[in-house]
Amino acid sequence: MAKDFVVTPWEVSGDINYNRLIKKFGIQKIDNTLLERIKKQTKDLHFYLKRKIFFAHRDMNWILDQYEKKNKFFLYTGRAPSGHTHLGHIIPWIFTKWLQDKFNTELWFQIPDDEKFLFKTNLTLDDTNHYAYENILDIIALGFKPKKTKIFLNTEYAKTMYPIALKISKKITFSTVKAVFGLKPENNIGTIFYTAMQSVPAVLPSILKEKNIPCLIPHAVDQDPHFKISRDIMPKLGWYKPASIQCRFLPPLTGSGKMSASDMQSTNTIFTIEYPEEVERKIKKYAFSGGQPTIQEHKEKGGNPEIDICYQYLSFFLDNDKKLQKIYYDYRTGAMLTSELKEITTKVINNFLKKHQKARIKAKSQIEKFMLRD
Amino acid sequence: MAKDFVVTPWEVSGDINYNRLIKKFGIQKIDNTLLERIKKQTKDLHFYLKRKIFFAHRDMNWILDQYEKKNKFFLYTGRAPSGHTHLGHIIPWIFTKWLQDKFNTELWFQIPDDEKFLFKTNLTLDDTNHYAYENILDIIALGFKPKKTKIFLNTEYAKTMYPIALKISKKITFSTVKAVFGLKPENNIGTIFYTAMQSVPAVLPSILKEKNIPCLIPHAVDQDPHFKISRDIMPKLGWYKPASIQCRFLPPLTGSGKMSASDMQSTNTIFTIEYPEEVERKIKKYAFSGGQPTIQEHKEKGGNPEIDICYQYLSFFLDNDKKLQKIYYDYRTGAMLTSELKEITTKVINNFLKKHQKARIKAKSQIEKFMLRD
Repeated sequence: MAKDFVVTPWEVSGDINYNRLIKKFGIQKIDNTLLERIKKQTKDLHFYLKRKIFFAHRDMNWILDQYEKKNKFFLYTGRAPSGHTHLGHIIPWIFTKWLQDKFNTELWFQIPDDEKFLFKTNLTLDDTNHYAYENILDIIALGFKPKKTKIFLNTEYAKTMYPIALKISKKITFSTVKAVFGLKPENNIGTIFYTAMQSVPAVLPSILKEKNIPCLIPHAVDQDPHFKISRDIMPKLGWYKPASIQCRFLPPLTGSGKMSASDMQSTNTIFTIEYPEEVERKIKKYAFSGGQPTIQEHKEKGGNPEIDICYQYLSFFLDNDKKLQKIYYDYRTGAMLTSELKEITTKVINNFLKKHQKARIKAKSQIEKFMLRD
Repeated sequence: MAKDFVVTPWEVSGDINYNRLIKKFGIQKIDNTLLERIKKQTKDLHFYLKRKIFFAHRDMNWILDQYEKKNKFFLYTGRAPSGHTHLGHIIPWIFTKWLQDKFNTELWFQIPDDEKFLFKTNLTLDDTNHYAYENILDIIALGFKPKKTKIFLNTEYAKTMYPIALKISKKITFSTVKAVFGLKPENNIGTIFYTAMQSVPAVLPSILKEKNIPCLIPHAVDQDPHFKISRDIMPKLGWYKPASIQCRFLPPLTGSGKMSASDMQSTNTIFTIEYPEEVERKIKKYAFSGGQPTIQEHKEKGGNPEIDICYQYLSFFLDNDKKLQKIYYDYRTGAMLTSELKEITTKVINNFLKKHQKARIKAKSQIEKFMLRD
């Protein structure tokens, strides 16, 4: 029997069965027909699509219909600032940048500092503000177009957002958030209201430009319940339902669930500001291995890349398909040892982080080009 | 047995028994000792205090303690813009102006347009915005000091208010708003969050000035449940509990409950923008009379001023105690007929409205001196 898993916007744990999740959430699997349609517009496919890291969607065909009719969409994604950025966070952003480049679209990047403040007992608004600006450096470092990208904190953009959230909130009952998120009478009233704020960016450009504009939300699959609600409400207010394209999680070093940003000492998480030596140490020490107990046994039976965390990290960070396939083959057949796989992974991630950290320093002087505030 | 009545921030109906309400809400009756203490500072007493129109309070003695120690309070009151201003609305504002004059204090005047939008199915944010600015004319017309009075709409001041509301909301559960206001799972999530916004002005000046400042809230008694919650939460956030001083309702023309602003055609309500002929007509036609069925019977048995709406209106709008006492006596003994009482009342109210409407026109050019926006 499959182990139990939990995927909500506030908790991800257990061994996630993505096929079951597709059924549970009522989302659509990305199939090859859809990939072909996307490729028709983008000429090539991001390896996150080829590898089904982005694996599900809502209404992508409608987004492409509209695009083909010259009714271009905008992108909306977000980052709730509860801690430093880790490698898991940036997966949807990397893909979002690709979408921005290929479709030449606007991107509205929400930083829901209110959410993390409300849901995390120990976080103050000063904490969430601090992490917000740390996270924004990582966002900018990925190379989004400053002229086409707007980043905003919910608290700093509340004069614009709150009245729109009111209109949305008027259509959502406590019963709904109870059913969709499992919120309880003991939850604070801020958490109950919050989903209205998360819905706002899906219509904000349409409202500001007084024109119904399709919205595509690339995001990690745990956020789907929010947008399921958005999709129910928006047509009632006269706007399009937002479409979405959803990715699986980069697993934590130790295996199941998703990485946690709440603790810099975390042994299952690699942060974007990590030193190369620390990345090496963490991978060596903590990365769950699909190898055999002894070198001899490994050479005989071969390793299991499917459950090997390093291999999975490479599938998120090593673009080159041929190289990845060779690693799979070598590890599966036992020609590559766990120590070698860990070494390669460390190199790939540290190469990525070296460039990223350089861009992150440059980003400090770029912030004001991106920020939207009232 | 006493008839049942309902007093919540969103419903007032039935024959209100104010003594029972004091017990139900757990508020304090204003007694003569307190009146003497107030008089010591103000030299005279407003007739709303002498006549126990302001009849209850929370922590007024503490406010006076602080005042005597030179720790001056600020005033906070509000108006939820669901329609045009009627005579009932301005009762607490008239008294608030007296407090501002006597204690020379700042006044923070909240216009919770969000509240009315969320609680009234048919109101749009355009409607509430329209009424907000209509209502603000009435507020300014009463003569508040522009340099010491700040008026703000929740939606227009949301960038400042929302983060504070978040901090407050984090301490309030759905169970609490269910118990205090009777909110249900079918209520929209905006209504559930709203009380946090109503609490904000009770600490806003303290937060902006980085100094704990006592707050006194003059208001109609139906709003007490909001401030009961504020009083629970504020000390947990390091701020003073707000104090309050509470008035009874100007009864509707037809008798029980309170006036309703939702319908300009209303037969139980006199609006501040009403023509004198219309005031006369409404009072003649609809004002519930404490008189006897026939003139002869009236002259023999006398009328009942206690239940007579005109007499009650005079107690709210006729400052002169001696004149009021003479009217009481004459009506009680049958020397004054209902038609005469109605005539006097019409005159008193139309005199008030004539001055008010003139000031209201002048107020149009004063608005920007008062408004606070992000």
